[in-house]
Amino acid sequence: MTLRALAFDVFGTVVDWGSSVIAELTAFGRRHGISADWARFADDWRAGYVPAMNRVRAGELPWTRLDDLHRGRLVELLDGAAITVSDNEIDELNHAWHRLDPWPDSVAGLQRLKQRFLITTLSNGNVSLLTNMAKRAGLPWDCVLSAEIFRHYKPDPQAYLGCADILDVAPAELMLVAAHPADLRAARDAGLGTAFVARPLEWGPGRTPPQPAPGEFDLFADDFHHLADQLGA
Amino acid sequence: MTLRALAFDVFGTVVDWGSSVIAELTAFGRRHGISADWARFADDWRAGYVPAMNRVRAGELPWTRLDDLHRGRLVELLDGAAITVSDNEIDELNHAWHRLDPWPDSVAGLQRLKQRFLITTLSNGNVSLLTNMAKRAGLPWDCVLSAEIFRHYKPDPQAYLGCADILDVAPAELMLVAAHPADLRAARDAGLGTAFVARPLEWGPGRTPPQPAPGEFDLFADDFHHLADQLGA
Repeated sequence: MTLRALAFDVFGTVVDWGSSVIAELTAFGRRHGISADWARFADDWRAGYVPAMNRVRAGELPWTRLDDLHRGRLVELLDGAAITVSDNEIDELNHAWHRLDPWPDSVAGLQRLKQRFLITTLSNGNVSLLTNMAKRAGLPWDCVLSAEIFRHYKPDPQAYLGCADILDVAPAELMLVAAHPADLRAARDAGLGTAFVARPLEWGPGRTPPQPAPGEFDLFADDFHHLADQLGA
Repeated sequence: MTLRALAFDVFGTVVDWGSSVIAELTAFGRRHGISADWARFADDWRAGYVPAMNRVRAGELPWTRLDDLHRGRLVELLDGAAITVSDNEIDELNHAWHRLDPWPDSVAGLQRLKQRFLITTLSNGNVSLLTNMAKRAGLPWDCVLSAEIFRHYKPDPQAYLGCADILDVAPAELMLVAAHPADLRAARDAGLGTAFVARPLEWGPGRTPPQPAPGEFDLFADDFHHLADQLGA
């Protein structure tokens, strides 16, 4: 079957959320005269995302966009650290996730891949987050698709199958590109093609992210240029 | 309230569906050695869209994407003209709506407007149609939103309000840009800003499309450059 479209995981795969969020938190601390271990705060913030999302996936919470899950966790962490700021300041800080910087190869690699394939996001981030991020960072998506549109967070199969359906392609004509084996396994189980892209610095230096087994996915790439090379783009 | 985002009607407002569909039908006729009044065929094809959509809006049909409504009408028209072609050829011809050419000012005007505002589609066309069209024509959308995402065709208020909600802006921070007064009236009733763009050739030379009353909408523009001038973009 011909490959027609590429769907990209975003946090960690396209953008370096860690460095970006730490920089935003550090600037926030400086503005408010607060010192803290902002790298650990960023990890704790991100770590709140999976359990909150799983409550939505299990039906314990109604559909809740990622901005609101992020905000809930942020308020918990600020309260825990006895940091008091206005609601507007919390919103502004929460939008740090709209202002993440791409990995150095992301924009140029996507421009290459876009010449040959339809390229879309397939992220748990909400549409406004992904759109604001793309506009700021120059990510040249053909369209912006999100768990929010399918009302199912990844790794629910409805997210992968919904992406193929709305693009009007067969699952096998769509490939998920991600730095996370669990995401790719779920995409493979839904019938999509799979490309693992190594992002060894996602969690900072010296912390090795989960790696796939050899041959587990269709493609293994060091970055988006390497992926474009393998796909003839 | 600050204007933050512009949502564009597409068929007739951004692209010249009439000339494009007539050209596709003419080429189809030439391939199959069929002569017909293709301009009238195009009008009849387009004319089938509102009643079919209204059956979905009224709940007589379940949600059906525009590609499938277009295809149903096309099959009726081909049958009525005793034209017999394969299912693949019908699909290929039906995708004429994915290959519409922009008005001469559309791409450059959108590039200007995009510098200052978030720009999105808000069309009854389905996501794959709009995405394929944008990729072919170079329409630089920040994201691709559609009635398909909100499961409500315009002029249902849910389409306009759903667009504001998913962009995380207030209705008054969003402006609909359209060449059709009825679309703009529904957007205004939902609380959006409104910009009428005159597209006098939408239905071909010598057929004047419906015009708005003086002062009925927030802005009145001759084309997208004139709109950009008025919005300071």
